[in-house]
Parts: sequence; C-alpha cells; structure tokens
Amino acid sequence: MILGRDDRLAARQRVAPRIHRTPVLTCDGLDRRAAARLFFKCENFQKTGSFKMRGASNALGVLCESDPPTAVATHSSGNFAAALALAARLRGLSAFIVMPRTATAAKRDAVREYGGKIIECDPTLEARETTAAEVSAREGAPLVHPHNDLPVIAGQGTATMELLDEEPDLDAVIAPVGGGGLISGTALAAHYFGRDVKVYGAEPAGADDAFRSLQAGRIVPSVDPDTIADGLLTSLGPNTFPIIQQHVEAILRVEDSDTIAAMRAVWMRMKIIIEPSSAVAVAAVLNRPDLFEGRRVGIIVSGGNVDLGRLPF
Amino acid sequence: MILGRDDRLAARQRVAPRIHRTPVLTCDGLDRRAAARLFFKCENFQKTGSFKMRGASNALGVLCESDPPTAVATHSSGNFAAALALAARLRGLSAFIVMPRTATAAKRDAVREYGGKIIECDPTLEARETTAAEVSAREGAPLVHPHNDLPVIAGQGTATMELLDEEPDLDAVIAPVGGGGLISGTALAAHYFGRDVKVYGAEPAGADDAFRSLQAGRIVPSVDPDTIADGLLTSLGPNTFPIIQQHVEAILRVEDSDTIAAMRAVWMRMKIIIEPSSAVAVAAVLNRPDLFEGRRVGIIVSGGNVDLGRLPF
Repeated sequence: MILGRDDRLAARQRVAPRIHRTPVLTCDGLDRRAAARLFFKCENFQKTGSFKMRGASNALGVLCESDPPTAVATHSSGNFAAALALAARLRGLSAFIVMPRTATAAKRDAVREYGGKIIECDPTLEARETTAAEVSAREGAPLVHPHNDLPVIAGQGTATMELLDEEPDLDAVIAPVGGGGLISGTALAAHYFGRDVKVYGAEPAGADDAFRSLQAGRIVPSVDPDTIADGLLTSLGPNTFPIIQQHVEAILRVEDSDTIAAMRAVWMRMKIIIEPSSAVAVAAVLNRPDLFEGRRVGIIVSGGNVDLGRLPF
Repeated sequence: MILGRDDRLAARQRVAPRIHRTPVLTCDGLDRRAAARLFFKCENFQKTGSFKMRGASNALGVLCESDPPTAVATHSSGNFAAALALAARLRGLSAFIVMPRTATAAKRDAVREYGGKIIECDPTLEARETTAAEVSAREGAPLVHPHNDLPVIAGQGTATMELLDEEPDLDAVIAPVGGGGLISGTALAAHYFGRDVKVYGAEPAGADDAFRSLQAGRIVPSVDPDTIADGLLTSLGPNTFPIIQQHVEAILRVEDSDTIAAMRAVWMRMKIIIEPSSAVAVAAVLNRPDLFEGRRVGIIVSGGNVDLGRLPF
C-alpha cells in the first residue's frame, strides 16, 4: 500500500493542471447558526460538478506514467462516471463506463457529453463488477475503481491540501462518506499537512454502513440504503476502511430531514447549488455544537449535481 | 445633476467597506453556447443577495456626510427593501420600509431580519409613494428612492467599476433593466472607466417600458407588466431615462421562456443561484450572436433571491 506523504504531493502535482482550483467560501449567516467559523471548499464548482474529477485525473496520470493505455473503464451510476469520461478525454483516451440501466437520463447525458461510452448492466453490484471486468478485458482498458483505488483516494485528498494551504489553522475537516474515497483522501491529507486537524465523516442515517463498520471493526456492507443523498449509497472498500479506522475521529449520522434543511440553508444563504450528499456534511456540523462550537471547520462541498426537476423543497 | 467621474470614485470609496467585493466568474460551457467570452459579476453573492446593497450604502453614506439622520425610509416590495434595512442597521439608523401588502412572506422576513420596520400599504404605485411620503415626514426620515436617486445610481455602478478593474478589455457590458438604477449606474461607470465599452440593457418582453420609452423619446410607464422577472416590473424615472438615452447602446427584449432556460443553464453549469431578473441578461446574450459573438462580455448578475418553493422548472 502506498499511503505516504510523497504520494499526496505527487497526486497534487499530477492533477493541478487538469482540474479547477476551487474557491473556499465563507458565510456569516451560517457561521452564526453553527457558532463556528466554517470554510466551504467548493467542489461543486469543480469540472464535471464534483470532486470526483480529482481522483479520476490522478488515477489516469498514474496509469499514463508507466505504460499508457488507449482506454480505461469503470462502473459508476453517478459523478465518477462523468469525471472519468472527461479525465480520459483530456488525455486522448477512450472511456468505457458501465452504468446500471436505472441510472438517470441526466447522469447518462453527462457521460455522453464528455465522450464516454456507456455499457448498460443490471442494477446490482455483482452485475456492475462482472460487466466492468468483461469490458476491461475485451477492450484492454484498465479498470479504475470509483473509490477504492489508492491513486483515486490520493486524488480526492488534494481538495483538502488546497483548503489547508488557504486555511492552515483549521481545527476540523468534515466530508461526506459513501464508498470512502473522499473521506480517506481527506484524512490522509489532514494527517500529513494539517496542524492537529480532527477529521469527521458525515453519513446519512439511512446509509450508515461506515458508522456500523467502525463499530463492528470490519466492513459491514450497505444493505438497502435509503437516503436522499444518492451519492452516498455505496459501501466502504478494503483500502478505504483501514484508513478511516486509523485517521477519522468519528462518523456522524444525519437524518434526511436535516440534510434537506441544510441544503436549503446553503442555497438560500450562499446562493450556491450543492447536492444532497454535500448537505449531509453541513447538517452534521449544524447538529453537533458539542464538537464544533467555536472551532474553525473545513467542509468539503463534494458536488453540485442535482436534478432541478426533482428538488426536495 | 451630479453625473461626473468624481462622483463614481467617491461612491466606490464610500461603499467599499460596507459591501462584499463580489467575484467575477467564467464558465467554459456557457462561453461555447454564446460563442463569446462571458464574465459574470456575481452580485447574487452580495450582502442581502443583490446589487441593491451598493446603492443603499452609497445613498446613506451621502446622507450621513452632511446632517446625519436617525432614520431613513423607502418604498420597495423587493431587494431594495432588504438592502436599505441592512445598510441602515450597519450605520445605526432606523429604516422604515413601505411595502405593498401583497409582498411575499420571504421578502418581509428578509426586511425584518435586517431590522427594518415594515409599513404596509395598498399595492399601487400611488399608495406606495403617498405612504412613503407620510412616513418620511412623520419620522423625520429622509426618503431614499430605490432607483431614481443619483447616489443610488452611482452606488449601483460600483459593480461595473470593480468588474472593469479585473477585466479592463471588455467589449460590452449588459445588465437587466427595471427602474433603471442598475443600468444607469452601469452605463456611467462604463463611460468613465471602460475602454470603448458598449452597454446593453436586457428587459423582459412582458415589461418592456424602457424599450418603448427609448423608441418614443419620453418615459412610457409600465402598465400591467407580465413577466417571471419580478425585479423588473417598475418603470424608468426622470433621472435614469436621460442617462439611458445617452449612454445605452440598445435595450434587448427577452421572452420569459428564454429567461427560464438561461436561468436553468446557469444553475446547472455554474452551480450558482441567480434570480430570474438576472437570467434575462444572460438570455439576451445567448439570443444575440449578431451583437456578442467573439466579444468579451460582462454580465451583471443582479441577484440570487428566489423562492425555492416556486421555481419555474
């Protein structure tokens, strides 16, 4: 396993020319509500609308440094699909994206817009993995896992490295937890580049596999998750789980009603569009003054891809 | 009339410590659609969510330089109401805000949140003006007109001054037209501080009193305006009309369907919340490649105050 400080620095150098350096925003109104100083790292403004562009760019950078492929493959129903498609196009590679046939039209359109080739499969994890393996073998396209690959994890952490450059004195950083790629990258970045920064994960109460996995001391997969935060349905992987065990202070669970209220508050107060998965982290901070009151808290706003025809308010 | 270059500079100095210097954003996707380079001056991120904070701050600054009042008054059903309330509070003044009893709960709440005192009146222009004059006399509170006062106009122009600092080589600037305070201030700022910048106004086709006024050569008031752009219902005033006549290249009319599509495009592409009145200006640029193709175009994004419960998509 490659989990060192140097790998973070290499990742940052690799992705910098291929991504946006996103802004860090503040909001007096939300600071008052949280009784804390909040720093929003706005990955909703990232290319393809989410932090996933960082991990995809780093993974392709690593692949191209040794024996450059002509194509890559992944399976994803969401933001990673679009991110890998664009990251591949920027390097002149083809991208084969295995998507469940239940994926929304908006998600497919995004992949197509960035030049990705969609392969449909049944909406089960097994079908996704089998189909992706087949496509990978047939096309000679290395498989990039959306959240468990170490270069993906390192790429996701670059958001926190940038945040700490601007705000080196953070007391805490919080990020949403789905498959764990973002929180793992965040935790390693905070560990190597922060000054005693506590890292928290925020998870929907209806998809709390990370919380339960930490309690059990082993990966407890997500079964029938039920949450509005559609980016956080997946389970931890063998690479992300031990990083979380070692470097994450706690996983904070959030009810969907609090997520919706936090999403609304950010839209109205900050005039920026964040997706429900990002609002989970904001809600966690608002819910827990015992942890965050009086602190300087970085919030990784993971993305801004919403379906305007199906808003929760 | 005080319409000189020095008044712009004084306004800028007056408002700078009391407002946000808002960011100028760009968007490759919208640039491609417009076949132009667009620079979005984001007054949706301004205090109180709109550019109106600039004009209110400058007007109060001018008042306080001579014989400081203890209170001020205005009539407004929208963004100026909240802006004057906050600008007054920041100077320790009371603010009496005459609002039609049809004003939405969200608009009232904003005024109250900033400490403004609401006086209700019938929803006619005559009732608003009469009530405001009464309140002003009774409370010894100078009346600040939402768009016709010269210091208000100068204040609104400071957005364009900031924009030109960052992008001195703009070919054009466009702003929405309601009562004309923003477009007048924009036009004077571009005249004094731009390098041959053409200024355009964007107006809903269903509230095109500025277009018709320019054609007629006299102020043609707005009668029964019908548009989703609820910030652009008012008519030009005696101060704004001549400035527009002299300094604005053309008024571009936009159908509501194009406004809604442009609003949706900005929300989805840029992940920022803009109100319909701002989307009118974006739509005007997208509609008129004959004017804007290949140009560097500044767009004044006037505000981001929307009712999330009543979105047009």
